Amino acid sequence: MSRYVNKLVREAKEASYQLAQLSTAEKNRALRAMAGAVRRSKKFIIEENRKDLRAAQKNGLAKSMIDRLALTEKRVAAIAQSLKEVASLPDPLGKTIAAWRRPNGLRLKKVRVPLGVVLIIYEARPNVTSDCVGLLFKTGNVGILRGGRNALRSNQALGRVLSEALASSGIPFPAFFVVEKPQRTYVDELLRQEGSIDLVIPRGGESLIRTVVEKSRVPVIKHYKGICHLFIDESADIKQALSICVNAKVQRPSVCNAVETILVHKEIAKEFLPRLKKEFSPLQVQMRGDPAVCRMLPGTRKATEKDWRTEYLDLIVSLRVVKNVEEAIAHINRYGSHHTDSILTRNRSNAKRFVREIDSACCFVNASTRFSDGFQFGLGAEIGISTDKLHARGPMGLEELTTYKYIVEGQGQVRA
Amino acid sequence: MSRYVNKLVREAKEASYQLAQLSTAEKNRALRAMAGAVRRSKKFIIEENRKDLRAAQKNGLAKSMIDRLALTEKRVAAIAQSLKEVASLPDPLGKTIAAWRRPNGLRLKKVRVPLGVVLIIYEARPNVTSDCVGLLFKTGNVGILRGGRNALRSNQALGRVLSEALASSGIPFPAFFVVEKPQRTYVDELLRQEGSIDLVIPRGGESLIRTVVEKSRVPVIKHYKGICHLFIDESADIKQALSICVNAKVQRPSVCNAVETILVHKEIAKEFLPRLKKEFSPLQVQMRGDPAVCRMLPGTRKATEKDWRTEYLDLIVSLRVVKNVEEAIAHINRYGSHHTDSILTRNRSNAKRFVREIDSACCFVNASTRFSDGFQFGLGAEIGISTDKLHARGPMGLEELTTYKYIVEGQGQVRA
Repeated sequence: MSRYVNKLVREAKEASYQLAQLSTAEKNRALRAMAGAVRRSKKFIIEENRKDLRAAQKNGLAKSMIDRLALTEKRVAAIAQSLKEVASLPDPLGKTIAAWRRPNGLRLKKVRVPLGVVLIIYEARPNVTSDCVGLLFKTGNVGILRGGRNALRSNQALGRVLSEALASSGIPFPAFFVVEKPQRTYVDELLRQEGSIDLVIPRGGESLIRTVVEKSRVPVIKHYKGICHLFIDESADIKQALSICVNAKVQRPSVCNAVETILVHKEIAKEFLPRLKKEFSPLQVQMRGDPAVCRMLPGTRKATEKDWRTEYLDLIVSLRVVKNVEEAIAHINRYGSHHTDSILTRNRSNAKRFVREIDSACCFVNASTRFSDGFQFGLGAEIGISTDKLHARGPMGLEELTTYKYIVEGQGQVRA
Repeated sequence: MSRYVNKLVREAKEASYQLAQLSTAEKNRALRAMAGAVRRSKKFIIEENRKDLRAAQKNGLAKSMIDRLALTEKRVAAIAQSLKEVASLPDPLGKTIAAWRRPNGLRLKKVRVPLGVVLIIYEARPNVTSDCVGLLFKTGNVGILRGGRNALRSNQALGRVLSEALASSGIPFPAFFVVEKPQRTYVDELLRQEGSIDLVIPRGGESLIRTVVEKSRVPVIKHYKGICHLFIDESADIKQALSICVNAKVQRPSVCNAVETILVHKEIAKEFLPRLKKEFSPLQVQMRGDPAVCRMLPGTRKATEKDWRTEYLDLIVSLRVVKNVEEAIAHINRYGSHHTDSILTRNRSNAKRFVREIDSACCFVNASTRFSDGFQFGLGAEIGISTDKLHARGPMGLEELTTYKYIVEGQGQVRA
């Protein structure tokens, strides 16, 4: 192990034991201090960000990436605001999840505690740095933040401002670490620090996440992609279904909870599909259909097997006619990404069957898949969305950044 | 991917969707049928086990391994009994964990569901096969069971008996799979079936578990080892402490919740250590001490740095004198395996501090570490013990073999 990584993980682990002992009040005070410091230091932060932007432009970074990298006065204000909001959220730590007594007098308690050290690997988006610092600090976790190298100066600037605020609010240890050596070899080393790092959350495109999973010995929580479905059942309210289709596809096509495939019950397809086309055409949504769809909507591009497995992240949608709810469920479980899928129906028993049999983190009835989100769910925050089944599934808020331990009190019991 | 593994994981995934829909009554009936079939087939099972035993003896397998492999009438009866007991445990599936309503009318529910397909990798212990079949079946999970190759015939025999019982009780699909090709290459392939297999639980020695973690792309829950501690605080009840030390070290030294290191407060050490030696000597417990212990108990073997990190699994114990509860906590967090650690004290504030600051799955007060066990905790079952922090920590029962999904019901909501 390199000296750099060795020192980093040792200091992070040590800090995690101190951070775990802070009171809620101490943490909230520090979060508000961080928010204030970001507001006061906006000039410095934006200046450092400009250096990143100039280098990124010189290196020919894609326009969409440069947009995500750029910090404006408004964006810096939003960063400060979200730190303030985390201060006002309830603290999940210390909560007793369950308590019971054994016949031999042992008293057991399951209590919520921090995970410890969490490594976040993300792209060149400086706001992720401060968001993660806030959420991890509130949940008593020490963050190791490794952002894209194109944002290194921005991240270091934010890190400096936030650390100074922590120190000035009386926190006598480093509560997070911005990785300052962006070389891949250090990331690879970090991913092998099982025992020192408790969790890795990769945030970014599928290829970044696949690389992390491939290399990591530390547990990873993630989603690769969101291939979300709408199933328009025979008894769907057509007007409502049209509005949900448009919302789920068009409102923000580049995100994981946008819909990619719409399944339509054969008994409603003839009426529904032409009306859907009428909605989608002026919005520039390209439709791709199975043979039945192509018959009903002549001129529609044919969907291939690959389409059913594609997250377009764009104004494209694949369409398929299905016999019944059973066939819809089978399609979704086979081709989907187990993220979010919604049935639009007035038939209670079909709705019940759908949510019971769909193997996805979020099973919706009569609502747009776009609600699959920590804030929309009312979690108050979101560190990411998981399509894993272990630990956390679906949108993850503060509670999902904690674990528990058993506290067992006896009066001298020994095992017979 | 080999055709064998491809077919196996595809069939397992398909079966998991059917298994998830069984009612509690159907599952309990099938579990009782399995118990009955094992009782009735004991002759066949024992005969097949004899073949494994003969081959193992010929191959020079260690005596302790052969003992674990051997099935007697009594052991087969215990297998049947534990299947019956699983039938009588509460079914965790379908339970609503939380439910709330959003201001826009969306109703959210977090509901307990099976994980899906669980791969168990274990050594040549046929009882693990039936235990895991029972626990996984009850929790709606399809098991893929890969036991040690020395137990292949025993596992196949048990598998046949259990499958026939399932079929005869009306389950029309295979609810578990015994891996019949024991070659390592197939195991390695299985460990890469992320997406088809939802969880791997390795059960066995540390090297088996390390190999699984190294190779797996599927999430793993595990513990490498149990370096459990007792801390004898200044105010401990000496008689009680002696009885707990003996219980935790001697009652079953070969298991993960036996104690390996005893830390003694300096103010009580002079009185406590000689009495502890008097207890341990006739029980053949070898003591290894730090310099302070060696001074107080002349002739004691010196403990090295390595001792503090060793799980002896034997009648050996390391001893160290510490200044206070703080030093005890630091030692345990540094050298321990985050499994189970116990403070023996009459000082409430030290007890509180210990359970708050120790970073272990199970933090005990005034009780033997030997209670760290699913049955002793009252979970009714145990699939293993986790020193991981994700998903499940400490003893794992039925609930730990489940995940949840969100069910969200709307009335046509779209996102603004």
